[in-house]
Amino acid sequence: MSKDSTNLLDSSPIGKKEFFALLRKILGFRPINKRLYELAFIHKSASIKLPDGSFVNNERLEFLGDAILDAVISDYLFKIYDNEDEGFLTKIRSKIVNRDNLNNLAEKVGIDKLLISNVNQNHLGRNLYGNALEALIGAIYLDRGYWRTKNYLIRRVIKRNLNLEELEQTEIDFKSQIIEWAQKNRKEVRFSSSDTFDQENKQLHFSVDLFIDDKPFGSGDGHSKKEAEQHASEKALHKIEELSR
Amino acid sequence: MSKDSTNLLDSSPIGKKEFFALLRKILGFRPINKRLYELAFIHKSASIKLPDGSFVNNERLEFLGDAILDAVISDYLFKIYDNEDEGFLTKIRSKIVNRDNLNNLAEKVGIDKLLISNVNQNHLGRNLYGNALEALIGAIYLDRGYWRTKNYLIRRVIKRNLNLEELEQTEIDFKSQIIEWAQKNRKEVRFSSSDTFDQENKQLHFSVDLFIDDKPFGSGDGHSKKEAEQHASEKALHKIEELSR
Repeated sequence: MSKDSTNLLDSSPIGKKEFFALLRKILGFRPINKRLYELAFIHKSASIKLPDGSFVNNERLEFLGDAILDAVISDYLFKIYDNEDEGFLTKIRSKIVNRDNLNNLAEKVGIDKLLISNVNQNHLGRNLYGNALEALIGAIYLDRGYWRTKNYLIRRVIKRNLNLEELEQTEIDFKSQIIEWAQKNRKEVRFSSSDTFDQENKQLHFSVDLFIDDKPFGSGDGHSKKEAEQHASEKALHKIEELSR
Repeated sequence: MSKDSTNLLDSSPIGKKEFFALLRKILGFRPINKRLYELAFIHKSASIKLPDGSFVNNERLEFLGDAILDAVISDYLFKIYDNEDEGFLTKIRSKIVNRDNLNNLAEKVGIDKLLISNVNQNHLGRNLYGNALEALIGAIYLDRGYWRTKNYLIRRVIKRNLNLEELEQTEIDFKSQIIEWAQKNRKEVRFSSSDTFDQENKQLHFSVDLFIDDKPFGSGDGHSKKEAEQHASEKALHKIEELSR
């Protein structure tokens, strides 16, 4: 973390005073190391050049915040669902931390109002919000420690904006997401499936390859064609996300 | 977490006194809620039936500990590598928390001496060690909180047993791992690859399907055949791990 005095909020659409007033509302507590919070909202496209020639943005904080978020959510779910097995816990955690849900949470929290970026918003551009939420979590963690971060997340983010009972019922439909993305971006999506009989377990095994404009974008396996398509779609969405960074 | 009085160490190869003497040595501090630590070493194959008819083992704790470990390692790397980008951080983190490395760490720490299981040890059986280390991390976290867990991990596990400089140089060779596994288990591994020319980016794109005894076990993509094979092998290893649970 650089300690020079470069103004990180230079290209912010709102002034420094308004930025911290809004941030204070989002956090519910006073930030100490303000620079960390400024950094959390700088998307890669608006990277800031420091006097030493290096560039800074929120990606390192996002790396950290992503892991802290996972830890807090895991703890929270572990205690709420004290009779459920790890399969259930893993599934519901992934419904909470998946891109789409994180983007929604970030917008509900108000992250979009503070974001500093130079990209046009489109379907994938919404990932900027979820990523900035993770970066903010990284900033809070470094500034105020684990327990404060945990309290912030559970009280202000999770309990206010997340309906666990609803989430238990939802299946994430990756196939619909990829088709929606393709329509918006005028691409053609094709699923190609095959099945083999698994002699050992006496059941059919399905493999699906997903192509976007005839280029392979992801493969998936499963005990049903639907399951294999879901896996392939999830991988393709990750790939699109990586390419769009 | 059940509060009844079932003896969780009934099928332990060592007595309760020896168990806690060894554990105390591994931890370097005194456990408070002892039952959590007992549970951390009970593999699924040695699940204990409680009076209410339910079974307990270390898998829930493993779910939690896995996430706590990721958070601690991310924090540690974030601070050590203060000039590296998130791509570097992600890569070195995955070298630390990958199955093989976790199993090694677990053995170095002495987890194997406390484990309670009813399975024969083989190549995959070593995952029991890494998983139990994660479960132990979950137990420490619940018993003593995040900071104590972090200090334990960094001082006693990471700094004593991990050479970061060496790790920076290593590439994880998933292909060799899957071939080694197949030889031990008398299975046949086959890689089937295809390439397409990516018009948009003007480069070749490789896809590899991996078959074990002619059943599809994983697919991978990449800019080289080697990269695609690595990805397919990594997925196949995950699948084998899931099937062997």
